[in-house]
Amino acid sequence: MPEALSKPDAAGDGQRASNTDPPCRVALLGFGTVGRAVAKILCETPQPTLQLTHIVNRNVERKKQPWVPSHVVWTDDVQSVLNSDVDVILELIGGLTPAHEIVRGALESGKSVVTANKQLIARYGPDLLQLAAGRGCQLEFGASVAGGVPVLPALRTGLCGDRLHGIAGILNGTCNYILSRIEHARIPFSEALEEAQARGYAEADASEDLDGGDAKAKLAILALAGLRARVAPESVRARTIRAIDAIDFDYAAELGCTIRQISRADLKGDCLRAEVGPCLVPLDSPFGRVQRNLNLVLTSGEYGGDMAFLGAGAGGDPTAVAVVSDLMFVAESLCGRRTTSGTQVSAPAVGSDFETPWYLRFYVRDQPGIVARLAEIMAAHRLNIDSLLQKPGFDKAALPFVITLEPCRDSALHPALEKMSGLDFSIRPCLCLPILR
Amino acid sequence: MPEALSKPDAAGDGQRASNTDPPCRVALLGFGTVGRAVAKILCETPQPTLQLTHIVNRNVERKKQPWVPSHVVWTDDVQSVLNSDVDVILELIGGLTPAHEIVRGALESGKSVVTANKQLIARYGPDLLQLAAGRGCQLEFGASVAGGVPVLPALRTGLCGDRLHGIAGILNGTCNYILSRIEHARIPFSEALEEAQARGYAEADASEDLDGGDAKAKLAILALAGLRARVAPESVRARTIRAIDAIDFDYAAELGCTIRQISRADLKGDCLRAEVGPCLVPLDSPFGRVQRNLNLVLTSGEYGGDMAFLGAGAGGDPTAVAVVSDLMFVAESLCGRRTTSGTQVSAPAVGSDFETPWYLRFYVRDQPGIVARLAEIMAAHRLNIDSLLQKPGFDKAALPFVITLEPCRDSALHPALEKMSGLDFSIRPCLCLPILR
Repeated sequence: MPEALSKPDAAGDGQRASNTDPPCRVALLGFGTVGRAVAKILCETPQPTLQLTHIVNRNVERKKQPWVPSHVVWTDDVQSVLNSDVDVILELIGGLTPAHEIVRGALESGKSVVTANKQLIARYGPDLLQLAAGRGCQLEFGASVAGGVPVLPALRTGLCGDRLHGIAGILNGTCNYILSRIEHARIPFSEALEEAQARGYAEADASEDLDGGDAKAKLAILALAGLRARVAPESVRARTIRAIDAIDFDYAAELGCTIRQISRADLKGDCLRAEVGPCLVPLDSPFGRVQRNLNLVLTSGEYGGDMAFLGAGAGGDPTAVAVVSDLMFVAESLCGRRTTSGTQVSAPAVGSDFETPWYLRFYVRDQPGIVARLAEIMAAHRLNIDSLLQKPGFDKAALPFVITLEPCRDSALHPALEKMSGLDFSIRPCLCLPILR
Repeated sequence: MPEALSKPDAAGDGQRASNTDPPCRVALLGFGTVGRAVAKILCETPQPTLQLTHIVNRNVERKKQPWVPSHVVWTDDVQSVLNSDVDVILELIGGLTPAHEIVRGALESGKSVVTANKQLIARYGPDLLQLAAGRGCQLEFGASVAGGVPVLPALRTGLCGDRLHGIAGILNGTCNYILSRIEHARIPFSEALEEAQARGYAEADASEDLDGGDAKAKLAILALAGLRARVAPESVRARTIRAIDAIDFDYAAELGCTIRQISRADLKGDCLRAEVGPCLVPLDSPFGRVQRNLNLVLTSGEYGGDMAFLGAGAGGDPTAVAVVSDLMFVAESLCGRRTTSGTQVSAPAVGSDFETPWYLRFYVRDQPGIVARLAEIMAAHRLNIDSLLQKPGFDKAALPFVITLEPCRDSALHPALEKMSGLDFSIRPCLCLPILR
């Protein structure tokens, strides 16, 4: 039962747009994996502040989807869209040409832009931000690094009050997949690469990933957003992971380490150090524990200390979340305040009937038949005992032991606990803890 | 060398405030640990969009600091500040009385509010957000949960495009400190509590922490921001950690687990389940690895999957980062777009001369004197060998072995690597990896 907390203030105070403003008109350019996922979210979870008006792609006819509302215009004519009354251009074409020209043109004509294009932002981000600021419009690029992990939005909003001096991350899922595979299967690099290619985790020409080009662009963007530093991606040194082989994981393990592609930058005064490449990291460190295609970013700030952000770094849906979040942010900025999306809340019934396995710890005066008695109560309440643990060496007058139960609801367990609380051999209330897996 | 990328657009397009707008006038209410840390950041790192104009506290004379600029008005008269021309009230008084009345009054008069007050937002957040939306002003509370960990800003901006269905976290540093201490020292609960009190990690009456009152309020706020659900903190069940003892960590360890106070909520349709209390969590899980007073929040979304946020959950400086970030966000919202703070970047010199220990892996044709030769080159370049690793069982014609070096700069290592690359016994280039600790 959604409850619209924010009533449009029809009278208003004259300062800001009211919530009765028409939604932002959004044109989506590039209907590939991410574009499709963005459109899906916008159609499945309509936002009062956003209206998808155009979808632009080459040979657009073959792209049409039945689940897109009929008012959306499908076209392959970018220029007509730029000349239209859309408020926001969503650039998901990728690459520099023609994306750069399109984004620049959009900003010049006062349209805001949301993009997931890492090469574009890594190269031209500072200039495009300047252009956007000069035209009073927005440029957001939260999806350009670490896909759905909201590290760029966090840098922009939650950490902007800090003075960051270091950023490091696992930013390339392909490298992490390949290195994890060598780590676990001790296969040669070439075999891990072929496997990644066969599974679609690496392209036929994977040089951009393996040799660090992809991560360099992402690191340049993190440096821009977090360290407020203009870093040309080509000025960042990168070392390839092609030279890593199974034997290196054997030797690394002897040193308590594993190997990951790490992108790192730190700022000291006027000097910024930045590098991308394979590094030894402790097995039990945050970096060492990142498996498969997850992304992890660590930041270090003067006031806030160290923060870590972990999540899915790629994929259509997670990246689309970042894009839609940027669109909502831009829409709110354009109408100058938090809109209904921020204040529309439901008022659900609140319960606590979680279903989990359980840990029950008893303190008893030891006597024959205790376990039998407890087991009988469990059985009567249809609770399944998973294990019985009893450490030796305790006083028989106050003996602690543990029963674990297979998953059941809190509400099913409660009556059994009541029954057990009255047993004469029990010298303390049973401690009952959920086991989270 | 800061480079102002955003030139004020004097002509403008008439739509938005320009960057020549006067900064937001901020009144700070409550000059305790966090208030002082906020004032420090604002004075040490002045923001073009923010101007601290008032500091309000009871008996304010004893609070005055020499490092606060003389134009700041120190006062104990809240009402005069509410009646003044400040744009933003920063409420760091805490508690419900008189904070609630002050915040409500500020919003009613169209002033935006930033607060770190978890009890206030947990209880009155939805109503206050509605009030703020109706008055066209902002209410931000990023510091009210998890101190400096930017989970609330991430929920507000980077994850708002997802549909979240689960949130779980370690939100109370006092509980986590006590449980970690019992875990590592196997001391009784009472001793761990005394220790936490002696070190200032727990109050004399620690009931709010131990029995879950503090975490309930934080969970209600996370449910509001992430699940968009109105949850009264008193409707959340809480179990105390007072019943946990050293023996429980012994038994938990037998199950591959440890014990943490977990706050969790999930939403399924119209039904929200929420609970705070000690749980068994796997030792090698993200929750199991959180030590001391760190906070960890995990979110689960329909599109973006699982995300993790880790960092310092309390303390004056980290909490102040969250507060200042909120202030900057409000200032930008009030002038309707990203301001210079978002576009002012430096252009530092970029290098890669990191200082680390190093891993050098050689492939050689085995012959006498190899190590001697390498050691001689290292010594000549003043590099200190830390260890020599050689696994048995390899072909003498292609023998891999590893030398690790004590920390040195990349630039110091490079000439030695050049020298070594020409050695006749080397059959592959030396693989050289930084070791990150």
